[in-house]
Amino acid sequence: MRLLECVPNISEGRDPDKIASIAGEVTKHKKVRLLNISSDRDHHRSVFTFVGEPEAVKEAALAFTLKAIELIDMREHKGEHPRLGAVDVVPFVPIHGVEMAEAVGIARELGKDLGKAGIPIFYYEEAALKSGRRELPAIRKGEYEGLNEKLEDPEWKPDEGPAVFSPKSGATVVGARFPLVAYNVNLKSQDLNLAKEIARKVRFKDGGFPHVRAMGVELSAKSGSASGGKEKRLVQVSMNLTNYQVTNIPKVYDFIETEALKHGVEVDGSEIVGLIPLAVLEGIARHYLKYPQFSTEQVIEQRILEFE
Amino acid sequence: MRLLECVPNISEGRDPDKIASIAGEVTKHKKVRLLNISSDRDHHRSVFTFVGEPEAVKEAALAFTLKAIELIDMREHKGEHPRLGAVDVVPFVPIHGVEMAEAVGIARELGKDLGKAGIPIFYYEEAALKSGRRELPAIRKGEYEGLNEKLEDPEWKPDEGPAVFSPKSGATVVGARFPLVAYNVNLKSQDLNLAKEIARKVRFKDGGFPHVRAMGVELSAKSGSASGGKEKRLVQVSMNLTNYQVTNIPKVYDFIETEALKHGVEVDGSEIVGLIPLAVLEGIARHYLKYPQFSTEQVIEQRILEFE
Repeated sequence: MRLLECVPNISEGRDPDKIASIAGEVTKHKKVRLLNISSDRDHHRSVFTFVGEPEAVKEAALAFTLKAIELIDMREHKGEHPRLGAVDVVPFVPIHGVEMAEAVGIARELGKDLGKAGIPIFYYEEAALKSGRRELPAIRKGEYEGLNEKLEDPEWKPDEGPAVFSPKSGATVVGARFPLVAYNVNLKSQDLNLAKEIARKVRFKDGGFPHVRAMGVELSAKSGSASGGKEKRLVQVSMNLTNYQVTNIPKVYDFIETEALKHGVEVDGSEIVGLIPLAVLEGIARHYLKYPQFSTEQVIEQRILEFE
Repeated sequence: MRLLECVPNISEGRDPDKIASIAGEVTKHKKVRLLNISSDRDHHRSVFTFVGEPEAVKEAALAFTLKAIELIDMREHKGEHPRLGAVDVVPFVPIHGVEMAEAVGIARELGKDLGKAGIPIFYYEEAALKSGRRELPAIRKGEYEGLNEKLEDPEWKPDEGPAVFSPKSGATVVGARFPLVAYNVNLKSQDLNLAKEIARKVRFKDGGFPHVRAMGVELSAKSGSASGGKEKRLVQVSMNLTNYQVTNIPKVYDFIETEALKHGVEVDGSEIVGLIPLAVLEGIARHYLKYPQFSTEQVIEQRILEFE
């Protein structure tokens, strides 16, 4: 079973009936698996994660988007999170056995279909057609409220669909990206500056590892010690690894551990937030076991999936 | 999807038609996946690996065994590997979401069915009913050629089926065990005694880690260097981890690395032979990332399997 993931974000985080009805367009697809729905009342926004064979995921994404556009009216939408439309952004993510080029192809197919349905479409990240449209914040600048004006600017002619503002639906950003690994390393220290300094060294924009975003943050964790649940204050290097095939967890973990030890500080622990592809674990085993040939094909569960 | 594995060994390693015909009893089960067939001409023996929901695997194992018993005649069998019958041993192995007690129950169901079909059955390992029958070599002692005499000994009354020697089929050993992880660590050294010394320290019978068998061996590996494919001689600590939930790879890897470094020797690399359950990787991530809460539930591929 080849696996493509779709992680659409919609501007509805409060009405469970609407959310369920939109989700139903995915669950009724027999070959697509809806893994997660995460709704936020304050953001008035929901993020869906579903996965399956590329063609099936594309079909589900189209049905999902059309249903969301039918049920959501942006004229009534207020929320803290930046957004451009009822279906704000639809990224496709290659998980297993799918090349990025195919994910881009699927994104463009969906974009064309939605464009024909009258929605202005912008392609972003790996599916971007213009260099100024790679980054989501650039496309989303001005938000829904500024979209009418933006669409009048020839610079912002949509990649698909009409350059016409639809007050009910706004616009949709469609694209393809690598899986994002949200990964945090906790340091046995209360020194926020140390966490910030290490974050600077590890992140790409300040000369660190490619495809790594990082920041130093303070966090409090309940200690499990017998001393009675005292709060243990720690600092954390919080990261997004945006292409684990280039920079995977072991590289940043080992680097952070070494940097912290230079200041006499140990790693308390680390954590992965959310879901990861099995290939992330493959990379961990290859590195720590000095076993570069290790393959997920040696994992029974992966072998079973190949029958599906 | 809960996963039980079955790894039957049969006394036929030469006739591809017979092997395919016996394998067909597994592949025709829609809910069981045949992952591997490994046949050895010299041993005149084949090992099958198949996996699926416990009840489906039990049904497939029964059909498989009856077909093998029909097609194999032990009176014509010569091979280097010790064996007791046409279907020599049928171990059930819990892989995911299955407790050992359930695997034992499945083994006993199969044993009863085969007993009724007239095959003397001995239960071994976790399914053993007598302490002297836990280990396969003890049961197999005397082999097929000594089975007639063995069955006349009240001490060796079968656990199921008649205490009657069937010259065509011999007897079958049925049981349940944990997944076996065949794991080797290569040392940058030609000192076989060092590998043997470390193997002694790591293996359980000499005071090492529980559920670890180990030996030191010499191996030759083609070096991938630019110097022209010169042979690089190394020594290896070769292990079987018979319960990775008690002693997983990181424990033995880190121990061997530390012991070797005491002699100024580095680890060259390591390797896993054959298939492993995903939970083995879970243990690797938990240890090396200092992330004890890490769960395979965070792996997309595992989440998909749960729909199947």
